[in-house]
Amino acid sequence: MIRLHDNLSSGNGYKVRLLLAQLGIPFERVEYDIDEGQTRRPDFLKKVNSNGRVPVLETEDGEFLPESNAILFYLAEGTPYLPDEQLGRAMVLRWMFFEQYSHEPNIATPRFWITHHVEMTEGRRAELETKRKLGYDALEVMERYLRNSEFFVGDRYSVADVALYAYTHVAEEGGFDLARFPSINAWLGRVATQPGHVPIT
Amino acid sequence: MIRLHDNLSSGNGYKVRLLLAQLGIPFERVEYDIDEGQTRRPDFLKKVNSNGRVPVLETEDGEFLPESNAILFYLAEGTPYLPDEQLGRAMVLRWMFFEQYSHEPNIATPRFWITHHVEMTEGRRAELETKRKLGYDALEVMERYLRNSEFFVGDRYSVADVALYAYTHVAEEGGFDLARFPSINAWLGRVATQPGHVPIT
Repeated sequence: MIRLHDNLSSGNGYKVRLLLAQLGIPFERVEYDIDEGQTRRPDFLKKVNSNGRVPVLETEDGEFLPESNAILFYLAEGTPYLPDEQLGRAMVLRWMFFEQYSHEPNIATPRFWITHHVEMTEGRRAELETKRKLGYDALEVMERYLRNSEFFVGDRYSVADVALYAYTHVAEEGGFDLARFPSINAWLGRVATQPGHVPIT
Repeated sequence: MIRLHDNLSSGNGYKVRLLLAQLGIPFERVEYDIDEGQTRRPDFLKKVNSNGRVPVLETEDGEFLPESNAILFYLAEGTPYLPDEQLGRAMVLRWMFFEQYSHEPNIATPRFWITHHVEMTEGRRAELETKRKLGYDALEVMERYLRNSEFFVGDRYSVADVALYAYTHVAEEGGFDLARFPSINAWLGRVATQPGHVPIT
């Protein structure tokens, strides 16, 4: 059986749990306490992920695949959650790289700092200000795109939507005001009513 | 003809130029002065990339594909630069997401600040310290992996290597000392001697 090395509060982990639920794939979950540094221990670094992060998918053959969006792409190949054509697949990746570079570091990290009660040093406060601005920039990019599209690629639900939904729908836990983004809110509603949808915890 | 919206000093742009050269695909290059904010102008945001960044690949059909690693994946499908099997492709993506999340923001950004003479405010100095530590962490992950592997996926040169080579081989321009990473240096040499290799500028 597939095994997911995971943390329940992680939006990156949630991406994978959501897709596995929608694909109807049974899996075993291994929970790590990230506040306790359980993903930075020598045995984890050696065996599961040298980069010290979850989620990591462990295949039935015992291969370890880190990086939430790589896992989504892997599981979605050959299913309706990933386009058949080459440019469509690349457009899914375009939004996934946007998510990991422009969105997640600015929207997920403030949520992590707040919900995990991380000490707000002076350096972190300066960083938070930068992240707040860049996070709103990323939401603005999504809002403008969604004004004319139901979903991010080919006007149908795909793993691009799964990747962007994970941290957007809990962005308010990181102090972002989503009320000013009507197209994002409508899209969040469409994603949440897809067959097989499950909540983050 | 394919058109690449680009900036010559960008490692992300270089990834695409390098792969296009190795694939023998002719292309037209459109240069943007990023110091002058040419990728943040309304016409660029509207037509080329709403996220205000290069590189962007413009296909012969006039479609615009942003995100360097999405472009690499798109161009490499069906060529020797991307594995045939599903898990191999996912492992390429794993290293590409590692590159954009854990490597590029910490290794490319200090290089940009230094080579583009960006003003070092107090906030930026605090950020630089964080990035220095995280950048070395990313190089350490690469070093450990390369101790037992010639290349990042399946022991053959792929777009995972292209993605990671771009900013690693100029990391010293951002103040990183590569002398302490013998396995990375050996790998840089293997990448630089691949058929069709071209330098960054």
